[in-house]
Amino acid sequence: MATGLHPFDPISPGEIQLVVKILQSAFPGVSLRYKRIDVQEPIKKDVVPYIEAERLGKPLPPKPARLLQAYFQRLDTGVFLKAVLNADTRGVVYAKELPKDAQLPIDVDELVEIEQLCLSHPAVLAEVEKLKLPPGMTICNDPWIYGTDDPNETRRLFQCYVYIVSVDHPEHNHYSLPCKFSPVFDAVTKELVRMDQLPSGNDHTCAQETQPWKPVKPVQYAHDLLDEPLRTDLKPYIVQQPEGPSFSLDGNVVSWQKWRLRVGFNNRDGLVIYNVTYDGRNVFYRLSFSEMTVPYGDPRSPYHRKQAFDVGDAGFGVTANELSLGCDCLGHIKYFDGYRTDAKGNPVLLKNVICLHEQDNGLQHKHTNYRNGAATVVRNRQLVLQMICTVSNYEYIFAFIFDQAANVELEVRATGILSTVPFDNENGETVPWGTNVGPGVMAPFHQHMFSLRVDPAIDGFKNTVYYEDSVPLPEDENNPYRVGYVTEQTVLKKSGTANTDVARHRVFKIRNDNIINPVTYKPIAYKLQAAPSQMLLASTNSFGYKRAKYATKPIWVTKYQDGELYAAGEFTNQSQSSHGVEEWVGRNDDIENEDIVLWHTFGLTHNPRVEDFPVMPMERVSVMLKPDGFFTKNPALDVPPSKQSFNKSTLHSEPAACCSGKSKVKL
Amino acid sequence: MATGLHPFDPISPGEIQLVVKILQSAFPGVSLRYKRIDVQEPIKKDVVPYIEAERLGKPLPPKPARLLQAYFQRLDTGVFLKAVLNADTRGVVYAKELPKDAQLPIDVDELVEIEQLCLSHPAVLAEVEKLKLPPGMTICNDPWIYGTDDPNETRRLFQCYVYIVSVDHPEHNHYSLPCKFSPVFDAVTKELVRMDQLPSGNDHTCAQETQPWKPVKPVQYAHDLLDEPLRTDLKPYIVQQPEGPSFSLDGNVVSWQKWRLRVGFNNRDGLVIYNVTYDGRNVFYRLSFSEMTVPYGDPRSPYHRKQAFDVGDAGFGVTANELSLGCDCLGHIKYFDGYRTDAKGNPVLLKNVICLHEQDNGLQHKHTNYRNGAATVVRNRQLVLQMICTVSNYEYIFAFIFDQAANVELEVRATGILSTVPFDNENGETVPWGTNVGPGVMAPFHQHMFSLRVDPAIDGFKNTVYYEDSVPLPEDENNPYRVGYVTEQTVLKKSGTANTDVARHRVFKIRNDNIINPVTYKPIAYKLQAAPSQMLLASTNSFGYKRAKYATKPIWVTKYQDGELYAAGEFTNQSQSSHGVEEWVGRNDDIENEDIVLWHTFGLTHNPRVEDFPVMPMERVSVMLKPDGFFTKNPALDVPPSKQSFNKSTLHSEPAACCSGKSKVKL
Repeated sequence: MATGLHPFDPISPGEIQLVVKILQSAFPGVSLRYKRIDVQEPIKKDVVPYIEAERLGKPLPPKPARLLQAYFQRLDTGVFLKAVLNADTRGVVYAKELPKDAQLPIDVDELVEIEQLCLSHPAVLAEVEKLKLPPGMTICNDPWIYGTDDPNETRRLFQCYVYIVSVDHPEHNHYSLPCKFSPVFDAVTKELVRMDQLPSGNDHTCAQETQPWKPVKPVQYAHDLLDEPLRTDLKPYIVQQPEGPSFSLDGNVVSWQKWRLRVGFNNRDGLVIYNVTYDGRNVFYRLSFSEMTVPYGDPRSPYHRKQAFDVGDAGFGVTANELSLGCDCLGHIKYFDGYRTDAKGNPVLLKNVICLHEQDNGLQHKHTNYRNGAATVVRNRQLVLQMICTVSNYEYIFAFIFDQAANVELEVRATGILSTVPFDNENGETVPWGTNVGPGVMAPFHQHMFSLRVDPAIDGFKNTVYYEDSVPLPEDENNPYRVGYVTEQTVLKKSGTANTDVARHRVFKIRNDNIINPVTYKPIAYKLQAAPSQMLLASTNSFGYKRAKYATKPIWVTKYQDGELYAAGEFTNQSQSSHGVEEWVGRNDDIENEDIVLWHTFGLTHNPRVEDFPVMPMERVSVMLKPDGFFTKNPALDVPPSKQSFNKSTLHSEPAACCSGKSKVKL
Repeated sequence: MATGLHPFDPISPGEIQLVVKILQSAFPGVSLRYKRIDVQEPIKKDVVPYIEAERLGKPLPPKPARLLQAYFQRLDTGVFLKAVLNADTRGVVYAKELPKDAQLPIDVDELVEIEQLCLSHPAVLAEVEKLKLPPGMTICNDPWIYGTDDPNETRRLFQCYVYIVSVDHPEHNHYSLPCKFSPVFDAVTKELVRMDQLPSGNDHTCAQETQPWKPVKPVQYAHDLLDEPLRTDLKPYIVQQPEGPSFSLDGNVVSWQKWRLRVGFNNRDGLVIYNVTYDGRNVFYRLSFSEMTVPYGDPRSPYHRKQAFDVGDAGFGVTANELSLGCDCLGHIKYFDGYRTDAKGNPVLLKNVICLHEQDNGLQHKHTNYRNGAATVVRNRQLVLQMICTVSNYEYIFAFIFDQAANVELEVRATGILSTVPFDNENGETVPWGTNVGPGVMAPFHQHMFSLRVDPAIDGFKNTVYYEDSVPLPEDENNPYRVGYVTEQTVLKKSGTANTDVARHRVFKIRNDNIINPVTYKPIAYKLQAAPSQMLLASTNSFGYKRAKYATKPIWVTKYQDGELYAAGEFTNQSQSSHGVEEWVGRNDDIENEDIVLWHTFGLTHNPRVEDFPVMPMERVSVMLKPDGFFTKNPALDVPPSKQSFNKSTLHSEPAACCSGKSKVKL
């Protein structure tokens, strides 16, 4: 069964079952708890000949080995292990115990277990009792990845943040009513480690004892919990494609407007784009969001440990929303499913976790000859692959957007609910590291630091990264009028980092030194239109910094090595320090005209607005990959003109009463 | 007639005729040439009580005087004048001669005159003769604003750039075939001032004599001049609003989703947005693009003078495209017209120069309660006001975009055709200040420096600008874990400038110190999500710098004064230096809690890609104005949920052959 799949295809339910079967045989008589079963990234040197044969329409060589991976726990010893298996031979490649300091990510079953543990624990119930909640009110909790503040801590811990649920409604906004007690549990022993009291003033002071709750009104977001009526003047806006979409599908291969790519999915990255070609030419081997950390700026314990790694600690695949037609996506929609595993090793369908559709993005190019009014107009049709991840309170909407001018946009929208803390603000109190968002509730400042991983294949698999600055010409005889400016190129010859530089209009480019553009006489290239961002604010003396070194520089370039997929390293949960891209650049590899990977760290310093509560209007950040001397002219010239016969727009006609000249003089 | 108009309404054709009539009476027996007749911005202190009464539904005070302006020339003396007239009293407020060093912008009739003058001039015909063009080939020319390189030059000059037209087609791309001779004309005397020879190698050397043209193939953009066939696999994408749009109109007032604004238009700014309120609260008094200069980085004569001021030298109003349904705008479209004047004073209709429509921009907010899967999803419907300007070779698409979360986006798309120069590149030659874009043709580096003018009215007309940086807390006992960060506020107390700062996540805010947000306990505010950009590259020792000081700093704040509308000053054509925002900030006015104007300079350093030729895929840059403590919670909560019953999306069904499991194993 496995052999029928493409090397880039996501794991199938049958493969999950196969892994469980093999592991059960490999560990006879031992009960196993499955944390994650997934595809193992294929060996690049083995898969490239295969996809190159596909691209060139040549006879296919043997497929690379179909490798699968499993993270699991022996329930007899409690030890965590990782195994890599060969689906073709049905054998175990290796199975090894994890290092003592490595914690696996949280899994769905574990999340539910901790949540229930907290809800039913006598110590928690005792605290709830002290709240003296009115009848009908209950509590809930969000188990949080514990983070780090102690190099000697090796237990698997969760900090539960507890909230009041004031009405029985599936979308009650408990984040508006945070409690001041917060238990910590050991996820293995299920023991209560500690009952923290949270600071609730504008300093580090914590209450000694839980006090009766002072009733305040929560700020709700659910439509049927709002005080105000819904708007009634929004008219339907319907997208129709009567002749169907412009894309075609063959399994997970998408073909659209000269683009061809493979839709990948795994539990950790979620959506992955593989083997991107344009008009038969290689462009990218693999595109993904490799990590995202959210360090909080509230300096007080226990908030100093709030630093989620949403890829490494949780996984964008397992947290991906099951999308629904007409809600998350507008128009003609294709959905892709994925699979995860439950603790017992059963495959769990993740339905509609990726959507694919076209969208219109206004004009792509236009020119009017002013002499005669003749105009050429081409619209910007785009192909969108979208995934929405819910990581407890927060949502990320990721979109990979392809257009007809060979541009790729990587867009992130941050939405969802702010992570809040209790704050006694009834008398006008404020803190300098957060924003009051309601009575008794404050949203601390934080950053979202994304790592976009670009594994390029610009007309081949050997590429070079350089940056180009725009600088004035010296004021000499070659620049007599003092207006001249030129570009300065800096090639990254050794694996390392680089900074963005707005003042010099720094642009990063990935070129293929082996192919010269016949018009420009320069190597063909794509450029990265980066998102220059504030880097990590945490001090170099903090765990926040040590655990997320990828978030301290915007550009990293490594020489490709199998297994180097995640900017903060394989294991981020409760990590003491990262073991990721900062170690890989440290090899000081030659990276000129080599198989390289470009990692772009960008972020949002998110100092909440009160308007971001109770659910946040999306904050958008995007990065573009654009051809720059890859073609010999605008590749979208052959897109048909924008015409009314094709677009069927509607001319607004005003109601009769407004059509008279008189309407202009009203008021 | 004039008295029926609203103070913010654009000029009417009757008003143009009135101005001409008044001026003819004021200058009896003198022939006048009209350069521009338009509305004069109303006096703010007079108009505010009027629009406030409108907003509050109170009895209207008397309307402010309806002022009109005229720039014109006495044909007896050749002198240029400016007059301001009162349409209500039908009188001349003043008429004054322009300063000697002031040149008025180019007008449409003048452009045609210069173009024809060049085409028929014997000296030009003699040069064309030397080209020995093949039969059927002709030439054309783009008259260019002359720029400046001589403090003693007071003539009104145009530099004509000449191109070969190889086929008789209304969209022949002559920019692909630039000639090496370039005549300069005096626009007043109509004399040939000079016949320049253009440099055509990679240094300053110019040919002494025009040589026979070496035939090369032009790079065409018109669909029917392409060598390659058009794409045939793009399927229609139709936007329907079966219940009509969500906006309503009353003259030039647009009401949409709690927004209310007035659509203004004049010959210089083009689209202007006035009197923007949200839910009855003042937000902005006036929004416009006040200037845009394009200095070129090619250091060689005569290119050092290429520095267009597209607002001041030409005008976004007079260059605005007449938009057409289904081509420039998709969906349900309302168009607005404008008027300009010809040289004789006749009103000329500018039809459909502004379009108004709604668009869907994906998701605005979403949250899923992971416990039960219950999701709240709201889409991001937007209202777009769009204008497209053709300034000779180049196009700008301006959009003012309003959304339901009270955000305003100011978007610019740069497209059109690069300004090109002849370049002998048949043997692999390159220059460091430009890009080869075809045989014999090079596109020099240049910058586009926009000035967005924001006249705010954040819940009132007295506002304060400050910026806020995100900075780490000191590493002391208040920050024991070294992860804390806070914001630092800097209030601009005196008129002046400020820099952007990505490394400190600097955000500019406009607040109303008189109104405290009841949730945050801070003054209500809007923030400017700026577009940090490289500033002007030209040396301080260049005319390019002296003429565009607004383009040397990203943020300027002035105290409001009537008549201060344009960042580089009233007269930019052949200016020796700017007399704009840099002079106004020099007053050192108090600007805290005053009537202020925020000017944001942002730009594109545009080092052309070969993909930007022959017509350029749009390069997008945008700035946002977002509420920040203006409301007490997300203002879009009451937008109805995104539902299939409303959106009517279509589920993709794959053709039968692909629906079997087998499709996944193909290839």
